[in-house]
Amino acid sequence: MAKKPLILITNDDGITAKGIRTLIEVMRTIGDIIVVAPDKPQSAMGHAITINDTLYCDPFVFDPEATHQEYSCSGTPADCVKLANQQILDRKPDICVSGINHGSNSSINVIYSGTMSAAVEAGVEGIPAIGFSLLDYSADANFEACKPFVKSITEKVLESGLPKGVVLNVNIPKLPFEEIKGTKICRQAKAMWVEDFDKRTNPYGRDYYWLSGEFINEDKGEDTDEWALAHGYVSIVPTQFDLTAHHAIQELNSWDL
Amino acid sequence: MAKKPLILITNDDGITAKGIRTLIEVMRTIGDIIVVAPDKPQSAMGHAITINDTLYCDPFVFDPEATHQEYSCSGTPADCVKLANQQILDRKPDICVSGINHGSNSSINVIYSGTMSAAVEAGVEGIPAIGFSLLDYSADANFEACKPFVKSITEKVLESGLPKGVVLNVNIPKLPFEEIKGTKICRQAKAMWVEDFDKRTNPYGRDYYWLSGEFINEDKGEDTDEWALAHGYVSIVPTQFDLTAHHAIQELNSWDL
Repeated sequence: MAKKPLILITNDDGITAKGIRTLIEVMRTIGDIIVVAPDKPQSAMGHAITINDTLYCDPFVFDPEATHQEYSCSGTPADCVKLANQQILDRKPDICVSGINHGSNSSINVIYSGTMSAAVEAGVEGIPAIGFSLLDYSADANFEACKPFVKSITEKVLESGLPKGVVLNVNIPKLPFEEIKGTKICRQAKAMWVEDFDKRTNPYGRDYYWLSGEFINEDKGEDTDEWALAHGYVSIVPTQFDLTAHHAIQELNSWDL
Repeated sequence: MAKKPLILITNDDGITAKGIRTLIEVMRTIGDIIVVAPDKPQSAMGHAITINDTLYCDPFVFDPEATHQEYSCSGTPADCVKLANQQILDRKPDICVSGINHGSNSSINVIYSGTMSAAVEAGVEGIPAIGFSLLDYSADANFEACKPFVKSITEKVLESGLPKGVVLNVNIPKLPFEEIKGTKICRQAKAMWVEDFDKRTNPYGRDYYWLSGEFINEDKGEDTDEWALAHGYVSIVPTQFDLTAHHAIQELNSWDL
């Protein structure tokens, strides 16, 4: 590529998270970067956008030596992508990368994911986009093994593009690099969370709940992201935002309403 | 149906909104109802869930004469469905209905929609589900024309069920009943919002933004929800939460990573 690609970087764990810092480090080796990310953690925000409140978006300095620009935004990951494209950038980025998320966004987690909502928002706006996640929720997770995969997948998307209406959901197992077997193109496993709310009483006598739950995967397909991750592969799921269940249209057309 | 169906009702405009009050009125003619809805507006919340904060969920009385139970919840629409199923109901509801939303959830709006996130959450949990929206954003919108459609579509789903992994996204045009031409099974139009942030300065000199924008539909297909709504039909889009772009898997498999 003669000209350096312009790379928009965001996430949902907040602009200071270790995961986005790793992503920035890798992307600086690929192109010109700009960071527009939430000023606080926005995990599990789904595709929320801010319509009834003000949005702040201010220049942010993490590393005084850095030569790229960063902006810290009061909104959601989807807000960050919208603001970046409409207010901050003077041309369309060549790619948008989101993450690296601290924790899995495989299977049904994709619908709750702030990381993926940023990628989807970019995709809606016609920008090739990838969400990266590591299967480690801890704040000081070790992202070293992610780096070569993040780099090669991003370079491949810059080189080949993505099918129209498709973004990538990439999940990386929590393993040392030498134990990761490679990448697999997968479908989203049909799994779900079975909730188990933790009910407590506050000091003033009012009941409240903490959402918790168990992840149940009854989809044993070897073409799923869950299978790939459990067997030491990086999973890559092509993800779309046309939610139409096209296969159901014919059946519903037989309805007499 | 010999036994009355159990109907879970929620929304994203909040438990006192006119839209959910209309939905309750219609559902009471069909089955036994339970209402678990947000205590405040949660529009554009996407599929957000509450994982880093406490959730309150308290009995709520809107009409002292009513014989059904209602609960007001501090969380998102998806939280309401999770709480209802795991903490409030002692059996799985026969259907979950969400809305009636004050404003459109057609086309790409589905990914931002709290109304639809509740329906999707129910779908993930194996409950037939429908999100209803009226193309009128005003708080005192007139929902009269919606009633016969809401009733007949709900009864049809109770009678016939839905294909596995599919929920319905129903949008109703802002027209008097006699001008609505009927219902159409549709696909989601490929449209988007082009943002146009309104940049202002607060009294303390700090810039902030309001998200606004223009809805652009360049998809002229006569099988889309936008076409149906523009031509006086109620649009019904079968909507899925397997986001895999299955058609893209073959192409991506040719990648050398």
